[in-house]
Amino acid sequence: MTRRIPASTIRRLSHYLRSLEDLERDGGETVSSEELAERGQTTAAQVRKDLSHFGSFGKRGLGYKVEVLRDYIREILGVDRIWNVALIGAGRIGAALFEYPDFGSRGYKCVAIIDSDQAKIGTRWGDLQVRSPDDLQSLITDLGVELIVLAVPAQAAQEVAERAVKAGVKGILNFAPIRLKVPSEVHVEDVNLVMQLEAVSFAITQRTVGA
Amino acid sequence: MTRRIPASTIRRLSHYLRSLEDLERDGGETVSSEELAERGQTTAAQVRKDLSHFGSFGKRGLGYKVEVLRDYIREILGVDRIWNVALIGAGRIGAALFEYPDFGSRGYKCVAIIDSDQAKIGTRWGDLQVRSPDDLQSLITDLGVELIVLAVPAQAAQEVAERAVKAGVKGILNFAPIRLKVPSEVHVEDVNLVMQLEAVSFAITQRTVGA
Repeated sequence: MTRRIPASTIRRLSHYLRSLEDLERDGGETVSSEELAERGQTTAAQVRKDLSHFGSFGKRGLGYKVEVLRDYIREILGVDRIWNVALIGAGRIGAALFEYPDFGSRGYKCVAIIDSDQAKIGTRWGDLQVRSPDDLQSLITDLGVELIVLAVPAQAAQEVAERAVKAGVKGILNFAPIRLKVPSEVHVEDVNLVMQLEAVSFAITQRTVGA
Repeated sequence: MTRRIPASTIRRLSHYLRSLEDLERDGGETVSSEELAERGQTTAAQVRKDLSHFGSFGKRGLGYKVEVLRDYIREILGVDRIWNVALIGAGRIGAALFEYPDFGSRGYKCVAIIDSDQAKIGTRWGDLQVRSPDDLQSLITDLGVELIVLAVPAQAAQEVAERAVKAGVKGILNFAPIRLKVPSEVHVEDVNLVMQLEAVSFAITQRTVGA
């Protein structure tokens, strides 16, 4: 499956998945595109279009089977398995991420925490001990880490990313405010909270200008 | 300006702005679409298309004046002014956001911090004292808060958002893992770190399937 799926579709799949899980908890067996649309704040046509990227689901007039669609979306998003994740940079971002209620339940398992701060190395985070950047490559290889959460200062990020990729990492959730240069087969998802604030101030500003 | 600008365009504008600021620091006076494209990891045609939403910039063969384009993008994004921001939920997410090097320099000024935890109320965060949710509406009104960072548990988020909107808030950076229901003139930007991880695991999974 090499065609390009829009980022907005993937984001909506994540929302549909949460809706389907809620429905299942409430004992729902089937769901219509209209219901999924309402919960995902989109249109029924968009729901059908999003799902059509991945095959044919549901029957006209009967809707989708909640459990079947849920399992299928889990498979599409790759959350039907366990991902070994390493956190590079044991600061507040990392701590916040692990507080997210669905981080662990989604199959993301933090198996290593690395920080260059001597004062942090050796301290415990839950079951884990913070490790030195010297151990980065061996930890990734030995523990089969495929995903890293990169939460280090901008000036360190590129070098750390390169070492992680060399050790076998395939995806990076990047909090450092730089554009990482990595081979095209490595997926980087940038998180920049200030840029997300800019999207809010943009929307407010444009509305005011338009008024 | 009421036409809809794609979210990906706004995101790239944020990247262009950072590139222009770097260029200016290095003494650059003009920049071509090609250079902006390279720094923003896109194409020159996309740069021109993104900017064309907002008017006509640059001269064929001469490129853009760095300072002029920088100021213009600042204006478009609404970061040519100060935004009074309230942080609702004084946890790790909020702390992490304030650590971002460009939060303050972008004109986002945190003027209030609110938390319902009695142990936190009254404690100091830099110059500010954590306040009770009872003061939410008066703080927003008195301090002219237009933007809030909502970092409270899911079950509290909708109620807090409604009270904030009633007090005059126009934009919300929402970390709570729910879809807020707010009037259409209020812009909500959702940040869900686990969903962003899902985008990474999706990309890895689809590549593996396609291989």
